[in-house]
Amino acid sequence: MKSGPVQKSETKNLIALLGKRLGEKNVLFALEDRLCYASDGSKQKYLPDIVVRPQTTQHVSDAVRLANEHEIPVYARGAGSGLTGGAVPVLGGMVLDFTQMNRILEIIPEDLVATVEPGVVTQTLQTEVAKHKLFYPPDPASAAFSTIGGNVAECAGGITGLKYGVTRDYILSLEVVLADGSVITTGRKTLKSVTGYDLTRLLVGSEGTLGIFTKITVKLIPLPEKIETLLVFFPTPEDAVTSANGIISHNILPRALEFIDKSSIDCIKGYRQEMELPEDANAILIIDIDGEEKSVQKGISLVESFVSKNNAMKVIAAKNAKERDALWEVRRILSPALYKIAPFKINEDICVPRSQILEILRAISEINSRYPFLKVANFGHIGDGNIHVNVMYEKENDQSFAEKMIEEIIHSTLRFGGTVSGEHGIGNVKSKFLPFEIAPQELQIMKNIKHMFDPKGILNPGKFF
Amino acid sequence: MKSGPVQKSETKNLIALLGKRLGEKNVLFALEDRLCYASDGSKQKYLPDIVVRPQTTQHVSDAVRLANEHEIPVYARGAGSGLTGGAVPVLGGMVLDFTQMNRILEIIPEDLVATVEPGVVTQTLQTEVAKHKLFYPPDPASAAFSTIGGNVAECAGGITGLKYGVTRDYILSLEVVLADGSVITTGRKTLKSVTGYDLTRLLVGSEGTLGIFTKITVKLIPLPEKIETLLVFFPTPEDAVTSANGIISHNILPRALEFIDKSSIDCIKGYRQEMELPEDANAILIIDIDGEEKSVQKGISLVESFVSKNNAMKVIAAKNAKERDALWEVRRILSPALYKIAPFKINEDICVPRSQILEILRAISEINSRYPFLKVANFGHIGDGNIHVNVMYEKENDQSFAEKMIEEIIHSTLRFGGTVSGEHGIGNVKSKFLPFEIAPQELQIMKNIKHMFDPKGILNPGKFF
Repeated sequence: MKSGPVQKSETKNLIALLGKRLGEKNVLFALEDRLCYASDGSKQKYLPDIVVRPQTTQHVSDAVRLANEHEIPVYARGAGSGLTGGAVPVLGGMVLDFTQMNRILEIIPEDLVATVEPGVVTQTLQTEVAKHKLFYPPDPASAAFSTIGGNVAECAGGITGLKYGVTRDYILSLEVVLADGSVITTGRKTLKSVTGYDLTRLLVGSEGTLGIFTKITVKLIPLPEKIETLLVFFPTPEDAVTSANGIISHNILPRALEFIDKSSIDCIKGYRQEMELPEDANAILIIDIDGEEKSVQKGISLVESFVSKNNAMKVIAAKNAKERDALWEVRRILSPALYKIAPFKINEDICVPRSQILEILRAISEINSRYPFLKVANFGHIGDGNIHVNVMYEKENDQSFAEKMIEEIIHSTLRFGGTVSGEHGIGNVKSKFLPFEIAPQELQIMKNIKHMFDPKGILNPGKFF
Repeated sequence: MKSGPVQKSETKNLIALLGKRLGEKNVLFALEDRLCYASDGSKQKYLPDIVVRPQTTQHVSDAVRLANEHEIPVYARGAGSGLTGGAVPVLGGMVLDFTQMNRILEIIPEDLVATVEPGVVTQTLQTEVAKHKLFYPPDPASAAFSTIGGNVAECAGGITGLKYGVTRDYILSLEVVLADGSVITTGRKTLKSVTGYDLTRLLVGSEGTLGIFTKITVKLIPLPEKIETLLVFFPTPEDAVTSANGIISHNILPRALEFIDKSSIDCIKGYRQEMELPEDANAILIIDIDGEEKSVQKGISLVESFVSKNNAMKVIAAKNAKERDALWEVRRILSPALYKIAPFKINEDICVPRSQILEILRAISEINSRYPFLKVANFGHIGDGNIHVNVMYEKENDQSFAEKMIEEIIHSTLRFGGTVSGEHGIGNVKSKFLPFEIAPQELQIMKNIKHMFDPKGILNPGKFF
């Protein structure tokens, strides 16, 4: 495995070969083109040597085969919206840009399946299947721009995880280009199959390190008839968490159950004049209930009575799509709005058993007290126990302290039975934490699997391990 | 890998060692004891040399380590109810009987998880979590006696698969004894985690060939408030299939949607005097709708109006648990009742995309016409496309014809985009069909994974490949 960018003459040779096989317009090497592929949602910068824009499985196969022969790193990329550096070409080499392989190949309502190319934007799939009254539930916050290919590679979650599960639960079959350029198909387009080892789910969440998806068959479910949304303000985080636990323990599984803490609330104050935020609110829950109309009504009244018993200060209800959108905008703008606190941010993605949420929030606050010049804002999918912890800092120099603080938070998370990443993946951003969670022998098994699939280490090198 | 039973003196030596480590009462070697472990639901007979009844993870680890050192086959066994020979010691050696490791270690309602030993009977877990108003959905027909360990090894399905998914969808974390006796833990007890490759789901459905489970953490969901059941008779299978498709395309996902064909109906005639079967009924659907009470009522009325439009001849509704049990008894007794047709049976477990169900039923009928002395009865989870095809025959001599016919059915299934096994697994019974479905390169990847986990091939040898 070469550790630096490829040699100039070798690159030229490869570009010529790729141009011949894939068409010259699909092979980019000008600096201004390559710059567009240097970064992703993790804001790192590594320049690739070549960018290939495949249009077919054969293109992907040809490009990967050539890369393998030349021992050149291959980085698959969808929208580049990942937060842990999954698409960043940390060792240079070749980026495979999948945005041109963005066809929905089939939607078969009778079979509750759809087959797509990896470059399809997640929301586009959701919109298209909704026309058949069908629902593709995985719903990362990035759904409006992230691609299914990236979602499968990272095993994306999102706000619907508690009720509907994550990407892994909806993938039936994958067409995959392996490191040597050969093409296999895993799984079947049937709702059930137990024929052989579950290679499909081994590949889901493998972050482009084992193979590159060229076709993805997903499972669909009927579209819920109705969604209603409540936004509830609480005087304390304890009240919000108690309410969340109470809702679930009263047999209601909300479509979404999102938590927003005080620091995050401060950032959205004044964002929408028509929405008055109670002055002393220290926590928000946003709750979606979906299903058949009457059961939604019943669920919403139960939730309303439950939060009022738990000191809710104010409840805003949305009855239609427009009002829902307005409430959810509060959550969507959060990530950028946090920059009101400070210009630099590290975003963590811990997940703990739900019974440990108050404990981990207290632990984070205690850790923060030892780094008083850093600010913390927490929000996320409280129903799953998945909290996005944002550590904010004023000066670039403070980064090392922020990283130290994050490391303490990760250790706390693991002590409470939690996990390093609920849904963002590992990439290179969190790879140093992997050995904190995964024991050496299990990590060795993972490395052996990686070596088996990719003996030359050309697929997304520099990630995971 | 030894291909026959271990040598007498070697066996004696091993029995002594095992007795010392695990306690003599946990090591059985008398013929009458070993005979109890020679067979499973597949009705094959292979006598093990030793039976070990572990009570702890340490026992399992000690037994497997010794077996690995002595290169002796190890066959993990729960209730032995599997239908594809997963628990049958085809090469002799050691059976690990997990029925004594049957403790529910914890149920944590706040976290929606439970951790159990592998020998816990599935229905016992369901009953215990129901006391907390929680639900463990995977529901194989064997739930009253099969164990969670076996369910995880086979990735068991069941009648709730369409709405709730299969075993794989509910497994969060596994404690696993590897071939060398070492113990690893995969996954986390959190509802979400994407830290490293998904070893948990690689192990689910691996049929004891990669590792042996000693602890299993499952995800739970709130118990549905209400279940109602309809049993509907149709003049033709087409009417039943059209109804099933219509129900789902009208946005209703039933908890269960079971199909029973004419030959099967004939077997249950007269079984219960109080249930009058219409003379000319050629298909039955059994439909469970569950959820919040009002939405169940609405769903049931929709289904009733839908089946009546599709020529339903008679609808029996069950409103309470007792009446439901009575209707479901019709389905539960089917498998043994088929022996009314003929004394010998081969049970297949094909699964096709739902849109292909009538096609595959017609193909089976066409194939059957070329084997007129064989009888076929079909029933199963029509919502998933998962049909249990039973080929019945009068004389033991006809077995080879039955097998030929099955092979034709398997080829047809694959042509319709189906799979060899929806939920019963491969074992040794279906291993000859594996290469029909899985391409050589993918099969080689599976073999490489097997070799990586179990270099001496001691774990459930003779299965899968």
